[in-house]
Amino acid sequence: MPQAAENIEHSTHQQVGRVQVLLESGTFRQVRQMLSSLRPVEIARLIASSPPPSRTVLWDLIDKDVSGEVLEELPYDIQSHFVRNMGTEELVELTEGLETDDVVDILQQLPEQVIQEVMEAMTDQDRARVEEVIAYDEATAGGLTNTDTITVRPRFTLDVVLRYLRRHPELPPSTDSLIVVNRKDDYLGLLPLSTLLTTDPSVTVREVMVTDTNAIPAAMADKDVAKLFEQHDWISAPVVNEQGKLLGRITIDDVVDVIREEADHSLMSMAGLDEDEDTFATAARTIPRRAIWLGINLITAILASSVISLFDETIDKVVALAVLMPIVASMGGVAGSQTLTVVIRGMALGQIGASNLGWLLSREVRVGIVNGILWALVMGAIAALWFQDIKIAYIIGAAMVINQITAALAGALLPVGLKALKVDPALAGGVTLTTVTDVVGFFAFLGLATYFYG
Amino acid sequence: MPQAAENIEHSTHQQVGRVQVLLESGTFRQVRQMLSSLRPVEIARLIASSPPPSRTVLWDLIDKDVSGEVLEELPYDIQSHFVRNMGTEELVELTEGLETDDVVDILQQLPEQVIQEVMEAMTDQDRARVEEVIAYDEATAGGLTNTDTITVRPRFTLDVVLRYLRRHPELPPSTDSLIVVNRKDDYLGLLPLSTLLTTDPSVTVREVMVTDTNAIPAAMADKDVAKLFEQHDWISAPVVNEQGKLLGRITIDDVVDVIREEADHSLMSMAGLDEDEDTFATAARTIPRRAIWLGINLITAILASSVISLFDETIDKVVALAVLMPIVASMGGVAGSQTLTVVIRGMALGQIGASNLGWLLSREVRVGIVNGILWALVMGAIAALWFQDIKIAYIIGAAMVINQITAALAGALLPVGLKALKVDPALAGGVTLTTVTDVVGFFAFLGLATYFYG
Repeated sequence: MPQAAENIEHSTHQQVGRVQVLLESGTFRQVRQMLSSLRPVEIARLIASSPPPSRTVLWDLIDKDVSGEVLEELPYDIQSHFVRNMGTEELVELTEGLETDDVVDILQQLPEQVIQEVMEAMTDQDRARVEEVIAYDEATAGGLTNTDTITVRPRFTLDVVLRYLRRHPELPPSTDSLIVVNRKDDYLGLLPLSTLLTTDPSVTVREVMVTDTNAIPAAMADKDVAKLFEQHDWISAPVVNEQGKLLGRITIDDVVDVIREEADHSLMSMAGLDEDEDTFATAARTIPRRAIWLGINLITAILASSVISLFDETIDKVVALAVLMPIVASMGGVAGSQTLTVVIRGMALGQIGASNLGWLLSREVRVGIVNGILWALVMGAIAALWFQDIKIAYIIGAAMVINQITAALAGALLPVGLKALKVDPALAGGVTLTTVTDVVGFFAFLGLATYFYG
Repeated sequence: MPQAAENIEHSTHQQVGRVQVLLESGTFRQVRQMLSSLRPVEIARLIASSPPPSRTVLWDLIDKDVSGEVLEELPYDIQSHFVRNMGTEELVELTEGLETDDVVDILQQLPEQVIQEVMEAMTDQDRARVEEVIAYDEATAGGLTNTDTITVRPRFTLDVVLRYLRRHPELPPSTDSLIVVNRKDDYLGLLPLSTLLTTDPSVTVREVMVTDTNAIPAAMADKDVAKLFEQHDWISAPVVNEQGKLLGRITIDDVVDVIREEADHSLMSMAGLDEDEDTFATAARTIPRRAIWLGINLITAILASSVISLFDETIDKVVALAVLMPIVASMGGVAGSQTLTVVIRGMALGQIGASNLGWLLSREVRVGIVNGILWALVMGAIAALWFQDIKIAYIIGAAMVINQITAALAGALLPVGLKALKVDPALAGGVTLTTVTDVVGFFAFLGLATYFYG
């Protein structure tokens, strides 16, 4: 089954193309046939890669038995869109086969009123498992928790455990450990399957259970959960509520989604975008989201321009300044965003703190000075030749060095300062940085020019 | 043990600070004591978060028994630095306890000559396992392969398998399935531990083994392996060579590293940085890497400036043009990088292809037109009031709309075009995009101005 992923992509695009043609010609039967031959994850890929108009049609053609699994695999934005247009009955049916955390993810996108209705219509068992975790925010350990755990008591022998397991048709996905609890459901420890399979069956669970790993508190932030999984190479981990009672477990597949989202966040935020953004969102949805970001940038651009307008008399005298000034600003912006990106990534990896920020800042400033001087010499020579004027060479060179050092300082300090102000550095860092490098770049270059030519 | 990750970070920074103080005062004994109380992954965090001068000292103070595990947890850049300064004997000792893929990762950073020496000095068993996978590139499935598999034959009963496992002290980490092979080591299927534990032990492996999952070919690219793991929620998967013989298995913890690196790649590349870049690299290492990127950007900035210089006579007449022209270029750059980021992420997720590029392009152009007109009206009004000149309002408005549409087209088409030319869109996309939006922005604005004022 695993073809090369390249082929998977290739075949998804062929399918998208074929589905478009079939839908346009109204041949729904063939599309339905094609969909029924795909696994839920493949159907979700197909929907996510299709333009919005086809999506609703595709959704209606999916076999009802797999629609819950398809929904669960869809990106958040598209999931919301479908979920908000569903009736209570359809929602109940859809969530029946799903894992608890997926049911909760879906419910949390609905208005309070609808959640109540759906939960009332659920079976008692389903309602009970959902009630346990729905109180937790989706960005916490609780929001990632599945209730499908297998628990054992410490006094059991491994032989009893083995016979107990044989009464199950299968183990829940990603089960690498059974969870040891007492009669009151307090978390006690883990019994790894590896231990169960390699130890003498007459031994009791208490004798071999692993107790050096605490359970994850349900309120822990999901990105902290991801860090723990990465550091310990966990496959699954138990989750407890405030009273230390077992709530369920988190599995690596859900943690991988957290890691990917978190990594996407920095990339998307730096362009003022949301990591949940649907690649094929409609123009109507996209326009207002992008407009805000453009508006913020317009304000900063006007700010930079007003610095230029302070020096309009000088530019009137020496028009070469207008030609060269974007170079100073642009080089500052590029150097600054290199520093900014390194610092934002370092912060996301938890590497940067008070103990090493000073060293980092000094390194960035040294890099800024050396590269500033290097390119100032090159650009100074070019400017002197271009405009046959040695004075302009000194001015642009000095302005470039000043702006490279400014860029190093701003790139390193802005994200730290923004974080302290509880503003997301990935979102606000880029726009504040270029404002600083534009303003300082124009001011240094045109200010020096006014002094020497004025 | 799992404190909140916030605390982990916090304590790492306290440790970094404390270690700095101790090292400066020469109290090595206390540092050694502190290191011996930490797990390898924590020591690696401490080293990665320390400035370079302390790193070598810390490395020398680590207990030799854990140095291999610490090395394996270090970021690539730092790992290379240590590895290149080691003798053959030290390397052999270090790699003894490590998993095969980690040994190979370390060896592949060394010159051919040294690899030969280290391998000759290894035990026969270690050499054999390394030889099997070292031929594969580190960015392939082969490079992620561990040889610590437990294999069973199809004719065994589950009872025999259970007794066989009990002879092992433990199962290899992340073992969720045993691998079924024939006498010639051809891959036949998987026996999930879940099946082993829930099925009647008198049944044979052949009757219950899973055969609908093909093994991963060793030559598959690592990012394609990651896609398969994500789609199937795998914990581990078997890897075969070209002849279909079992080579070993890939486990989710190594796949998580691939996912994180891949996600980091887009972020870092967009600032002209390498995803392997060490946050605390020395200035000497950082300067040349950054200098190249600045040099490339200087060329593009000069290109944009030369467009301005075409219109220096017009600017000489209307100095307001010099004040306003950066706004047109900047708004184009911002809009273009939003489109670019969406497309690059969509391409990384495998969502964008020939079948939907047309739709995406049309959406981006529509967004560009609407937002272009919106902010052109705002900016036009501001310009008219600022310079008491209605003509300049029309000119900047028209130039902004032209540049927003250009930005949409360039942002969507550049990454696709660059990919077709086998150039990394994340690396080259940003710099080519801003060149286009700067050149078109200046040309449209100053060109229109020359026409209307000239």
